[in-house]
Amino acid sequence: MAFKRYIPVESISELTINRLSVYLRCLDQLEQEGVLTVSSQELADRFHLNSAQIRKDLAYFGEFGIRGVGYNVAQLKEHLVNILGLNEERHALIVGAGNLGTALAHYSGFNTGGFRIVGILDNDPKRIGAQIPGGLVVEDVKFLPDIVKERNVHIGIITVPAAAAQKVFDALVEAGVQAVLNFAPTQLKGHPEVKLKNVDLKINLELLSFFLTQAGKLVPPA
Amino acid sequence: MAFKRYIPVESISELTINRLSVYLRCLDQLEQEGVLTVSSQELADRFHLNSAQIRKDLAYFGEFGIRGVGYNVAQLKEHLVNILGLNEERHALIVGAGNLGTALAHYSGFNTGGFRIVGILDNDPKRIGAQIPGGLVVEDVKFLPDIVKERNVHIGIITVPAAAAQKVFDALVEAGVQAVLNFAPTQLKGHPEVKLKNVDLKINLELLSFFLTQAGKLVPPA
Repeated sequence: MAFKRYIPVESISELTINRLSVYLRCLDQLEQEGVLTVSSQELADRFHLNSAQIRKDLAYFGEFGIRGVGYNVAQLKEHLVNILGLNEERHALIVGAGNLGTALAHYSGFNTGGFRIVGILDNDPKRIGAQIPGGLVVEDVKFLPDIVKERNVHIGIITVPAAAAQKVFDALVEAGVQAVLNFAPTQLKGHPEVKLKNVDLKINLELLSFFLTQAGKLVPPA
Repeated sequence: MAFKRYIPVESISELTINRLSVYLRCLDQLEQEGVLTVSSQELADRFHLNSAQIRKDLAYFGEFGIRGVGYNVAQLKEHLVNILGLNEERHALIVGAGNLGTALAHYSGFNTGGFRIVGILDNDPKRIGAQIPGGLVVEDVKFLPDIVKERNVHIGIITVPAAAAQKVFDALVEAGVQAVLNFAPTQLKGHPEVKLKNVDLKINLELLSFFLTQAGKLVPPA
């Protein structure tokens, strides 16, 4: 095997990782349909993806597929599950028990396939003690450090108002959380050792706006 | 100018459109910092993007930028706003006034930069008439067809339970809505003339899981 220069995982873009999740959803669907093998071109045609991009994205993580045959659906799925770390259970803690935090606490997908919400916290005495659909009870945010340690929390989910988000982020980092999903619409000052992902729900509305605006138009080929 | 074969906008992938939104966020930030011009390479380095991808994505929509100088930040931003149709006001209607629907009704971004939530509907008598933070009052879903027409609704947002989502989607289509954002965790049967986008919040958790799993590892170069 030829010598290879390796690059740090941190330099792989979030868009690449998001595409791995998209490929995983596609493979799930193919598996449900009983499809056993698929080429990058078939995968691309079927799900409106780019075959060269698929090959490039997967090449980051080793050699998959057999030339002329394609990928074994079950094997590629297992590879993606391993790459994304979905074979281990990740514990997540929600901070902010308003509408969004409450919705996420029982959102399908946040308690399946590798993830489990182990708590939901707030600082409002009117919310503390309330039972959330799904079974959790809102706890006092003052217990955040203990809860992170005792329940082995890997991921913090911030659903507090923008003005409180930095304080919550800092508290999560201080408590030892390694990754944070921020829904508060504000730019947080990050931490070099903690992966911070800001969720941008508006991007979906912009996608629809694009199609409403451009519907039926023609654009030059790339 | 050479003859060009044009392709339908519908064949541009959602991932490409999502990247336009990402570029727009980056340009917003550069503009706030007083940056006037930026090359695709600088944009890529600064925001961990891919410069070839940026050039390719933008090339779909015409010629931007000056070779050797780069893009004028304000002009490119304006182009992206126009491409995404954010220069027109889009009216959106939320169906499902549970925690998620209520959260989205006053989510920052859903009422700014081209979008306005013009109503929130439910079929639960206990919810109908309730005031939502932000000012809207929950209305009866039986008025959906009239509300879509009278308030000129372009986008429907589905936040009902999975079991009710198809019925709501069909009602929105029947009423004349052209684009639908579905948060219900279920596969909807679409309609050829209506753009349907399923929101996958789990993809963000999977991104964090990837970084937790792979942190510090090295991967081969692409």
